[in-house]
Amino acid sequence: MAKPKKQPRPKAVTPKGFRDYFGQEVTQRTEMLRAIADVYHCYGFDALESSAVETVEALGKFLPDVDRPNEGVFAWQEVDDNDKGDWLALRYDLTAPLARVYAQHRNDLPTPYRRYAMGPVWRNEKPGPGRFRQFYQCDADTVGTASMAADAEICAMLSDTLETVGIPRGDYLVRVNNRKVLNGVLEAMGLGEDAAARDNVLRTIDKFDKVGEAGVRELLTKGRLDASGAFIDGVGLSDDQAEPVIAFLTSKAADAAGTLANLRAAVGDSKIGADGIAELEQIGALLDAGGYSADRIEIDPSVVRGLGYYTGPVYEAELTFEIFDEKGRKRQFGSVAGGGRYDDLVKRFTGQEVPATGISIGVDRLLAALREKGRITAQSKGPVVVTVMDRDRMADYQTMVAELRNAGIRAEVYLGNPKNFGNQLKYADKRNSPIAVIEGGDEKANGIVQIKDLILGAKIAESATLEEWKERPSQFEVPRGNLVAKVREILDSQD
Amino acid sequence: MAKPKKQPRPKAVTPKGFRDYFGQEVTQRTEMLRAIADVYHCYGFDALESSAVETVEALGKFLPDVDRPNEGVFAWQEVDDNDKGDWLALRYDLTAPLARVYAQHRNDLPTPYRRYAMGPVWRNEKPGPGRFRQFYQCDADTVGTASMAADAEICAMLSDTLETVGIPRGDYLVRVNNRKVLNGVLEAMGLGEDAAARDNVLRTIDKFDKVGEAGVRELLTKGRLDASGAFIDGVGLSDDQAEPVIAFLTSKAADAAGTLANLRAAVGDSKIGADGIAELEQIGALLDAGGYSADRIEIDPSVVRGLGYYTGPVYEAELTFEIFDEKGRKRQFGSVAGGGRYDDLVKRFTGQEVPATGISIGVDRLLAALREKGRITAQSKGPVVVTVMDRDRMADYQTMVAELRNAGIRAEVYLGNPKNFGNQLKYADKRNSPIAVIEGGDEKANGIVQIKDLILGAKIAESATLEEWKERPSQFEVPRGNLVAKVREILDSQD
Repeated sequence: MAKPKKQPRPKAVTPKGFRDYFGQEVTQRTEMLRAIADVYHCYGFDALESSAVETVEALGKFLPDVDRPNEGVFAWQEVDDNDKGDWLALRYDLTAPLARVYAQHRNDLPTPYRRYAMGPVWRNEKPGPGRFRQFYQCDADTVGTASMAADAEICAMLSDTLETVGIPRGDYLVRVNNRKVLNGVLEAMGLGEDAAARDNVLRTIDKFDKVGEAGVRELLTKGRLDASGAFIDGVGLSDDQAEPVIAFLTSKAADAAGTLANLRAAVGDSKIGADGIAELEQIGALLDAGGYSADRIEIDPSVVRGLGYYTGPVYEAELTFEIFDEKGRKRQFGSVAGGGRYDDLVKRFTGQEVPATGISIGVDRLLAALREKGRITAQSKGPVVVTVMDRDRMADYQTMVAELRNAGIRAEVYLGNPKNFGNQLKYADKRNSPIAVIEGGDEKANGIVQIKDLILGAKIAESATLEEWKERPSQFEVPRGNLVAKVREILDSQD
Repeated sequence: MAKPKKQPRPKAVTPKGFRDYFGQEVTQRTEMLRAIADVYHCYGFDALESSAVETVEALGKFLPDVDRPNEGVFAWQEVDDNDKGDWLALRYDLTAPLARVYAQHRNDLPTPYRRYAMGPVWRNEKPGPGRFRQFYQCDADTVGTASMAADAEICAMLSDTLETVGIPRGDYLVRVNNRKVLNGVLEAMGLGEDAAARDNVLRTIDKFDKVGEAGVRELLTKGRLDASGAFIDGVGLSDDQAEPVIAFLTSKAADAAGTLANLRAAVGDSKIGADGIAELEQIGALLDAGGYSADRIEIDPSVVRGLGYYTGPVYEAELTFEIFDEKGRKRQFGSVAGGGRYDDLVKRFTGQEVPATGISIGVDRLLAALREKGRITAQSKGPVVVTVMDRDRMADYQTMVAELRNAGIRAEVYLGNPKNFGNQLKYADKRNSPIAVIEGGDEKANGIVQIKDLILGAKIAESATLEEWKERPSQFEVPRGNLVAKVREILDSQD
């Protein structure tokens, strides 16, 4: 019970890069998570929830932005009875924890293990506009099988999921690539064993969407002056060396067969490259057989994915419609989900090869896309507000709201200072309430209540003539016993 | 894409005091959170989700167990471009963040502001059996009104919520007390201004459930030898000084009127004590009027609540049925929810009085209670498993699961190595699958599939005679076109 010591008042602010979500923002996300989980569940995936906190060693270091403090995670050292203990951190994704869970519980889990997981993840990134350091992911992964059928299933499920949450066919594309093909290209270039060079090339390829073919060519070789005038160092390849990378990047043809033929040329006689192409062929054949054709899922060699743990197929779901960015410029909405195969992540723990593949949906971006397209609205109907005309009769008003709630109608009694009735209506307005209920002393004595249709009232106030106003009253006087029936009637008329 | 450096393998373990939740554990919690949110929403409460991370100064120091490192929270210092920044921490409850949110956004929020929130909170406690450092809370609070109608509403809603999630009337009790009454007792004792003594007395009272009246009397005075033989120092009051505290603690009478009369005697002429009793009377009257009588909600002076920020009414929901603890001893299940009024928590930020009150439900404990009573089961039906008899025909098997899913039936194709068919059935067993589907080359050629009722099969294997076994076959051969219809028929027969 210690009183807080006298000290300057704390600032009422979220930490930098974090934000609060209110009302519909929360419930719409909950609904979306539920819809996604239903699809995942129907595909046979089981729920898993690991804790937000993991040991740093279990998480590993796989984030792309490695220059940040603690390599991009929020971390701290355990203090136990004043001894220093393990370093702990907030998870940065749901994949690294899955690898830990599978390694820890593998004897009790089925193999293959299909699991889904959803929840916030944290990145210790530099905050920026629209970039938050906590965001939701909703993942599905299959651990313990090297079969390309698992990858194909994940891609098909991703496509189904997007359509389920409200992105129609034609507004999205699942793009599939394979890290092995790219490694094949690098092998063909003689860079197969040079991890640093490979990383640099991967990072450069990832910029293809932004800087285009010519830009990537510059970045692979001598460097590039970017739009802001800053000079970006190049990877230092010769023009000849850069060519196979460009060939790979631009190998997308009119159809999958054409793309695969181009890729075959790009990897030359690299074994790993040929393996990657064979995998892409298998995935493509399974998806074709399932009716997932190129209007939904296609092979696209420009997909890279930033995370360091992918070993085979990688996938990305992109929304293909255009939106206006904060500066009013048209641009494609872009990626809302990504994933791939990571055959070595469990091996970190167990030493044994445990192949795995999976997808992560960026739920907050997907919600933003649906709002952008007007498919969900930010505003919802508030509760019916029972106003307080006589503060000694709170029990009467509580009885009214209880009756309404028992009939399944969202309702509340006004709990502020009831002195000023105008404030009560202002409150109902701020709550976006559809209806206000009024019972003063006279009404009580006569056994009636006043019911105000606030939505109709607002419409009339906005536009109606006096005639219309007389014809369509927005306030009704009904016997107290008809409260619930009349409220329901008005609510139905508002839908 | 740097390879992880050669180093000892990371250990696949959760950090101490954290755990993983699988399958039904997750979905049952999700269902419960949804059911609770539905009640809160129907009462007019709006959703709020703040981030897991807050500044340490915004959270404040209100946890009871103040001797822990960082006063019981997980905290770390921001590192920004190598400068040290704010101290951040994981939230330890959902109330402190609400106070911050209200102070930050008060101009945009309705007043009073009814909000609900749900999610994990973290406590840097010493881990112990069954004590976890991450657990779920599900809160509802009303900010901006001093009306006791808000407190009564919270108690009524808590009662409704418990019944909604499956705790029948008679198996729980919401107990209400008021910090002001206790402060009145302390004032009557001449300890009103002595914060340290008050804290000690509060902590002692909190042990009433465990040590009883005689134990509390010893702890308030000269100290006590506990069951383990350890001596616990006393608060150091004289026997005369301890008496009003005992009178307060034991003031519960057969009915509310009797309890209130006893409390009136205990607080003497303390003004704050009288205020507290008047508040309890108001809450009691409103609840009585709403039909929430003593079989659901009662005044109980032994309720204290550990958190330091409460200023008026405090409430606690207790499950009253008995369970067996880990040592096989019978005990009451105990508290699953608690809350109270905290009129000063927003004032920390704004300097202005903002009264508030609310409740927090310990969702994990509530789930444990329902499991204990057998009201929810840990095991659920798995997906229909389509087995793989011919690995070159994955597309055929995928078509089958797609048909089943399109009919709303949870289904998956076996993705492990299909060579050993026994492994496929073992897998289906581990998944708790109700049905396995088999289509070998012969079946394919004849246009049929085999459908195995695994649940019936297991029953027959367990107990049936040969006769019964012949009479009730658990495997059916149907035309391929009847796959979905037959699977549905079997699923329906299993319910």
